[in-house]
Amino acid sequence: MQADAVVMLDSGNMDIPSTWLRPRAEIIYCAPTQETGLDERGTSAWEKKKEMTLYLIDLEISRAQVAKPVDQLATEIGLLPEELESYGRNKAKVRLSLLDRLHSQPDGKYVLVAGITPTPLGEGKSTVTVGLVQALSAHLKLNSFACLRQPSQGPTFGVKGGAAGGGYAQVIPMEEFNLHLTGDIHAITAANNLVAAAIDARILHEATQSDKALFKRLVPSVNGVRKFSPIQISRLRRLGINKTDPESLTSQEISNFVRLDLDPKKITWQRVVDTNDRFLRKITIGQASTEKGQIRETGFDIAVASEIMAILALADSLEDMKNRLARMVVGTSHSGLPVTAEDLGVSGALAVLMKDAIKPTLMQTLEGTPVFVHAGPFANIAHGNSSVLADKLALKLVGRDGFVVTEAGFGADIGMEKFFNIKCRASGLRPNVVVLVATVRALKMHGGGPHVSAGSPLPREYIDENLSLVAGGCQSNLKKQIQIAQQFGVPVVVALNVFKTDTQAEIDLVCQIARECGAFDALPCNHWAQGGRGSVALAQAVKQAASKPSNFQFLYHSEMPIVEKIRTIAQRVYGADDIDLSLEAQTKIDYYNQQGYGSLPICMAKTHLSLSHMPDKKGAPTGFVLPIRDVRASVGAGFIYPLVGTMSTMPGLPTRPCFYDIDLDPATEEITGLF
Amino acid sequence: MQADAVVMLDSGNMDIPSTWLRPRAEIIYCAPTQETGLDERGTSAWEKKKEMTLYLIDLEISRAQVAKPVDQLATEIGLLPEELESYGRNKAKVRLSLLDRLHSQPDGKYVLVAGITPTPLGEGKSTVTVGLVQALSAHLKLNSFACLRQPSQGPTFGVKGGAAGGGYAQVIPMEEFNLHLTGDIHAITAANNLVAAAIDARILHEATQSDKALFKRLVPSVNGVRKFSPIQISRLRRLGINKTDPESLTSQEISNFVRLDLDPKKITWQRVVDTNDRFLRKITIGQASTEKGQIRETGFDIAVASEIMAILALADSLEDMKNRLARMVVGTSHSGLPVTAEDLGVSGALAVLMKDAIKPTLMQTLEGTPVFVHAGPFANIAHGNSSVLADKLALKLVGRDGFVVTEAGFGADIGMEKFFNIKCRASGLRPNVVVLVATVRALKMHGGGPHVSAGSPLPREYIDENLSLVAGGCQSNLKKQIQIAQQFGVPVVVALNVFKTDTQAEIDLVCQIARECGAFDALPCNHWAQGGRGSVALAQAVKQAASKPSNFQFLYHSEMPIVEKIRTIAQRVYGADDIDLSLEAQTKIDYYNQQGYGSLPICMAKTHLSLSHMPDKKGAPTGFVLPIRDVRASVGAGFIYPLVGTMSTMPGLPTRPCFYDIDLDPATEEITGLF
Repeated sequence: MQADAVVMLDSGNMDIPSTWLRPRAEIIYCAPTQETGLDERGTSAWEKKKEMTLYLIDLEISRAQVAKPVDQLATEIGLLPEELESYGRNKAKVRLSLLDRLHSQPDGKYVLVAGITPTPLGEGKSTVTVGLVQALSAHLKLNSFACLRQPSQGPTFGVKGGAAGGGYAQVIPMEEFNLHLTGDIHAITAANNLVAAAIDARILHEATQSDKALFKRLVPSVNGVRKFSPIQISRLRRLGINKTDPESLTSQEISNFVRLDLDPKKITWQRVVDTNDRFLRKITIGQASTEKGQIRETGFDIAVASEIMAILALADSLEDMKNRLARMVVGTSHSGLPVTAEDLGVSGALAVLMKDAIKPTLMQTLEGTPVFVHAGPFANIAHGNSSVLADKLALKLVGRDGFVVTEAGFGADIGMEKFFNIKCRASGLRPNVVVLVATVRALKMHGGGPHVSAGSPLPREYIDENLSLVAGGCQSNLKKQIQIAQQFGVPVVVALNVFKTDTQAEIDLVCQIARECGAFDALPCNHWAQGGRGSVALAQAVKQAASKPSNFQFLYHSEMPIVEKIRTIAQRVYGADDIDLSLEAQTKIDYYNQQGYGSLPICMAKTHLSLSHMPDKKGAPTGFVLPIRDVRASVGAGFIYPLVGTMSTMPGLPTRPCFYDIDLDPATEEITGLF
Repeated sequence: MQADAVVMLDSGNMDIPSTWLRPRAEIIYCAPTQETGLDERGTSAWEKKKEMTLYLIDLEISRAQVAKPVDQLATEIGLLPEELESYGRNKAKVRLSLLDRLHSQPDGKYVLVAGITPTPLGEGKSTVTVGLVQALSAHLKLNSFACLRQPSQGPTFGVKGGAAGGGYAQVIPMEEFNLHLTGDIHAITAANNLVAAAIDARILHEATQSDKALFKRLVPSVNGVRKFSPIQISRLRRLGINKTDPESLTSQEISNFVRLDLDPKKITWQRVVDTNDRFLRKITIGQASTEKGQIRETGFDIAVASEIMAILALADSLEDMKNRLARMVVGTSHSGLPVTAEDLGVSGALAVLMKDAIKPTLMQTLEGTPVFVHAGPFANIAHGNSSVLADKLALKLVGRDGFVVTEAGFGADIGMEKFFNIKCRASGLRPNVVVLVATVRALKMHGGGPHVSAGSPLPREYIDENLSLVAGGCQSNLKKQIQIAQQFGVPVVVALNVFKTDTQAEIDLVCQIARECGAFDALPCNHWAQGGRGSVALAQAVKQAASKPSNFQFLYHSEMPIVEKIRTIAQRVYGADDIDLSLEAQTKIDYYNQQGYGSLPICMAKTHLSLSHMPDKKGAPTGFVLPIRDVRASVGAGFIYPLVGTMSTMPGLPTRPCFYDIDLDPATEEITGLF
């Protein structure tokens, strides 16, 4: 890494295209000092001597390091050639047959990276994850794997930009990470929208045909013989009709079979696009004359909000994924019965569309260590974690002494709680360590600092030393998040993601209070400026923590009543006094109990900007009652999701979206502006 | 091939899953005779002797042949390893740098496969194309390449099913051909919908902000300095503002710059999905309160109807594609100015999204010969041909004595006319031979046979010998289509795609009349039952025809007035007496002339079921006036498209779509029902 950076500096790459100097681009003032090679962010001896400032931004760093061929990486980590499906030179899908081959191999240590309640700017969980595996692999010489979520393309062209990490802790090539990758999100979009098209076409056909005509078409005569397809026999079974000969059905049975009788007002399935398209949030469809007046209101979500994404992340085999896809409930019939993807006859086709998406994608960090990129479900209406399968494959690949570092979305109250109660429950895997990411910036906010918002300059409190704000944040939010992790019986290592404005006194204070609050250890990390070398101390602490026996336990039993599960999370995780169920929420819970969904785990859809439901309440709020506005179910993914407030499932484009600066040089094929 | 087939037969694969016996699945009665190995369709000596019928359908045949690794295929055809980007084992993208490396290599012979006016069942152009290259390569030992269109996934799950060819003339693996392939259509969808999101978000932001606020956001201050991005400077140039310092603009110039002032009623850009979703044909968007009342009517097309697909098919380099994307007109301002993708600031991002899609995908036929699959634009609102780049790469790869066989959609009056006047004009390539595909079935229809429709049994006239119907079809439609090709100065070889119900007398009659009508030659082909061996005679005729000097000429000069170009096509290709322009069409033509689009070629959007605009008029209709309902422009793709009647750009799902039978075996990962 140092050598690469020095080469870059020596090459005199001083002419930075203006498009890189965008407002949202964080600029690294990065140069090697005489003594230490690369310095942290901030001015350095070398920089002053040369009387110049080098601007190296994420993309520049990403490009300076040539990724090794993915087949070489695969050989290094013990994959057989037939287990790899390359997609170009730098990324490959890994076949699930690997799980069978390594069946008797013991799993490595399982580390979750979570965070304190973040500012709207984010506190760097992805860079900590990448920095930690770089330190474990390249510096501590331990096999290690990072498991990351695939980012949505919507925000890449909207406000947020790419998500490959940053500085010297990145996944490369970042262009491929941020764009189509190996097509998984496109496959989800295709599968999701096939379900949607099937729903509306079916409503139209049922509205315009008699039972007899529907039956004749649904079970056509081939060479004079009518036969049910396997998917139709499944539907008959669910209807309690144990017949296989189409000719033997009574007219009532035929009617029950051919009519899904979907109530257009109770369709919960939305269409999706992987684009920030706010005008699709609420739309009216079916307005062409060919649809014969079957108009209804619906909307599009961003593709990663699809239940199919959550299924991809939770499935532990092709068969499990197929079964979950079949179970997805798309709406309710007029008589109150749930209608599934299998009822629509579409579940086999969904499995076919998703057959490659289920294989995790192998990439690498800047330091050439392996990364799985797989699945990226929403962290509010879904569970916000990368896939079970990627974690399982990685745990086998690293072996007993190795480490798998996986990341949960949002703060620990959301992403970590769901990691434990939903993902670990589904996978059967048990974590050894939680790394809790904090920043001085976020801690100051929780300690009472002024409002932080994206796009506005940071107030002075966040730039100058302010130990009292730091202490306030540590004693409130950091302490609470540590305690949440401890309720699950897993040791916590606090990783303070160091910014150039942080003072040594602030850094020391955070680490001291974190240890006092029960953290196994707390360390500053400089992965962003230094790569793995900047996270060696963190890696050593994680290694030590992982050697402790873990007493992992779920927060609730799945058989607990739905309301009690919600209350448990609200009280023990968020610190609420109680919950307040709306009438609608209570009605839905009764319905889900009646339908047999009562034992599903809970996936809270809550703001990530506060431990409470009120984004402005920083620190560790108490004395509040958590309002449950509504409750929904993702039956295929396998969770009930209570809505605390309104969740946007479709981002918008600002006046000047990121795409204004994204460009391609047709001669060199180099991409600019994507970071 | 024979060996593979025999292995299959010997293995006693008699247990055909019921899902394969679908109404639309054509069944091959295929077995080796004692003498010749594989017989044609129909009963054979071997079959009778064994007293059994073997049902081998397309998928079974596809599976029986194991595709060779794509890197082996690439080596065979002379690609360097660094020119290949594998996507799994059986398909790869080919880098455009190949064109530079082979710059001085002479092109091979260029063969277009077109058809007579088809029945709604299709007459087998794809299988003829594949059979012909199999014959040229494997039997005549000539380098040859097939260039095919990528099918839309919508119809694969809707009515039509897959499009990989059929019988023993297929592209394999057909599952990969028919599904996501290498993601090109997904990339088009993402790019198309980013433009759509940008349009509506911009309308909203312009409606809710002052000039000053818009300017402040569009040209933000970075470290105290405002700078235009390159894409903004392009817009300033188009507005006639030759300034580069944002501070120097007058308030009028600022207003002109920040306001695209799109007229919501004159937006021509639609969203797309690659799903048959009829309920999206006409929709109302922007109904959420966050969009502040900016509701409007619009619709979705199927993804392959996107102008971006047409651009992919016509671009001859990355730079050309990028420029075409920038030129795309998405609508008109209130003051009547065209608004482009570049005005929206999105064209660089579009090029980034499309950077891999521009590389053709290499696959193989059942006999292991190379195929490029690349682009698949609509054949009515677009030009219906595979990509210029795939043809160019293939022509270099086969070398002087080799053959590239490319296919045009619909009948020769549409696909071939557009191949010549649009695609060849864009590429500069000149064809050597046209292969005109005919079937006895379609000829009987043109000769006065009863109505043919998908899903209904064929009337007896199409099963029993009927020489007078055949002769009628030959003297009308076949003759006219041969004459159309001859107007372009290219020799025509008629390929009669033989069905098992065709009699020898019928076959002989077609070939005789075709030669009398001016075809260079006319031959029956049995590629479907026999693979390349069944098309050897066709291959020999094509080889001979290609050795003749070609006198290729366009049908019209691009500088001819738009109306005259339309009239020329209507009269000389369709056989119309004249055209009848609606007032709307005339107004649009005036507008396009005024905007400087007058020299674009014409892309007629007409039914493919008749030479005229009336689908029921078979044969070679005369004495009609072609009505031009409306005229539109795809400025980025580079053509004007007159609408003759109403074109559906979004297919629907029937009561029982194909997906009912599509399934995946989780244990073997084998797909059923996809063909």
